Amino acid sequence: MSDPAERILTGCHASAGQVIRWIEDGDRRGVAALKHLYPHGGHAHVIGITGPPGAGKSTLVDALIAELRGRALRVGVLAVDPSSPFSQGAVLGDRVRMQRHSTDPQVFIRSMATRGCLGGLARATSEAAVVLAAMGQQVVLVETVGVGQDEVEVAELAHTTVVVSVPGLGDEVQALKAGILEVGDVFAINKADHPGCEDTEKHLRGMLAMRAVEPGCWQPPLLRTVAHSGEGVPELADACIAHRDFLGEAGRLEEADARRGERVFRALLGELCAEALLARAEESPAHASLLGAVRAREIDPYSAAESLVSALAVRGGDAPR
Amino acid sequence: MSDPAERILTGCHASAGQVIRWIEDGDRRGVAALKHLYPHGGHAHVIGITGPPGAGKSTLVDALIAELRGRALRVGVLAVDPSSPFSQGAVLGDRVRMQRHSTDPQVFIRSMATRGCLGGLARATSEAAVVLAAMGQQVVLVETVGVGQDEVEVAELAHTTVVVSVPGLGDEVQALKAGILEVGDVFAINKADHPGCEDTEKHLRGMLAMRAVEPGCWQPPLLRTVAHSGEGVPELADACIAHRDFLGEAGRLEEADARRGERVFRALLGELCAEALLARAEESPAHASLLGAVRAREIDPYSAAESLVSALAVRGGDAPR
Repeated sequence: MSDPAERILTGCHASAGQVIRWIEDGDRRGVAALKHLYPHGGHAHVIGITGPPGAGKSTLVDALIAELRGRALRVGVLAVDPSSPFSQGAVLGDRVRMQRHSTDPQVFIRSMATRGCLGGLARATSEAAVVLAAMGQQVVLVETVGVGQDEVEVAELAHTTVVVSVPGLGDEVQALKAGILEVGDVFAINKADHPGCEDTEKHLRGMLAMRAVEPGCWQPPLLRTVAHSGEGVPELADACIAHRDFLGEAGRLEEADARRGERVFRALLGELCAEALLARAEESPAHASLLGAVRAREIDPYSAAESLVSALAVRGGDAPR
Repeated sequence: MSDPAERILTGCHASAGQVIRWIEDGDRRGVAALKHLYPHGGHAHVIGITGPPGAGKSTLVDALIAELRGRALRVGVLAVDPSSPFSQGAVLGDRVRMQRHSTDPQVFIRSMATRGCLGGLARATSEAAVVLAAMGQQVVLVETVGVGQDEVEVAELAHTTVVVSVPGLGDEVQALKAGILEVGDVFAINKADHPGCEDTEKHLRGMLAMRAVEPGCWQPPLLRTVAHSGEGVPELADACIAHRDFLGEAGRLEEADARRGERVFRALLGELCAEALLARAEESPAHASLLGAVRAREIDPYSAAESLVSALAVRGGDAPR
């Protein structure tokens, strides 16, 4: 068995690590492995854990791992580090604690980093989740550090999104959180033993009450947790599983997976189209002279790109049957 | 004069707002205006202001506006709100203060939001900076809220990147900051009257000392500011201007602008290529059946997209001359 994809299907951690590295690096072997793994990757419950820096997400993930292991579930963790384009995937201090689980053969933990390309991190994380699901991890926890765009991506990737808040954050962070309220399926106020918890809960309940709720829709629960003591963590796990069951009963789990496949297909299609035509565009003599003119500000980049592509497009062939 | 681009060149704020809205919405009229404005948009000093939530960036920007206005400079401000895909561009509380400058005809302030597309915010902000430069704003301040990927984008957009720190942030945020150290041209410890400033400064100096510095390179200064009293703000403005002068003397300002044009050209080219071929791909009967198979998990999305694009590509024409 020399094929890493085959070895992943038998639960090999080292091969999973290898394939995820290929995915991060944009190595073609990553795509080859994904083709093989994709049919086996549809059965994990992907749970996104998101919230502002300092909310104790890593400690909460650590506690969730212990809780899910206690239920004999195989767990995968992807810790997304958006700062890593610069820090080259350095492991954050808070995440060190989590590594105590890494000697458990039923737990796979990986920090996700990506160099360069925007949007690449969400894509790589989504693909890494396919790898972990194919390896047989029944739950995949995806933790993001950061505020903003990351939440959107996690929400698209996950079946269940947990939004973690914390008492006593400043106004600016609270305002930011308003944006992610709409993507949360489960809300947790972590560090619930800290002062200000009542206020935070009241504030969140007020904002949740403004969400449009249609009949038959999921009602997002709001829970209190103290990650470092484990308080509230079983209830948090229950809430996530209840949400998955809700999706399953309503046929939405399958729909979500179908939609995810469709999204990957469309994104790839765009990418491969760009690649195929871009290669031709870049070979053309017009490309070099237009690029020079753009750099010298003799032409604006919009007109330059349009003229090059329209010259290519008129020569394009017919659609295939 | 019915053309908004023409009116922007004469300093019309309303037209600038209109064109920026088109840009955010992906309206074609935005591109048409940009083609017109681009040749006039190369002369502003774009300063990115970045750092973790709660560092007081908005207050610092507010103080910088006052300082730069005192030097008779025309100022544009783009406040980037990455949470806005959900919150629909809500103005954050801290940014309300800044609006006191909005009655000054020499100051233009805009919150940047974008719906949907990833990477769209950086692109729209970059294009809005072109609009403000063409309107005659001599300095454009670009403020981001958020930690992570946003910093990368601001650094690519700005001539000068100011990284704002603050005393007493938690470990997680400090670790995140390690990633953005490498993009900073000027470092400011804001709220320098708060306890813990010495420690933060020591910590930052230690990290900056590890940066590889080649002879003839810019040495990033580290300053203390108290934005709400204005302390240290003139020195911060001086440092930014000194950095721009450094870039100008070394010929790097021109090179940075040429690179920016090149980046826009390449990104557009990829986009237009994708668009041109994607339209053909989506029209083909093979597209519908492959999409159905992907949704039903009968084929993986990678193989599906590849087979569709390779069928299209072999029928493509020659490169234009």
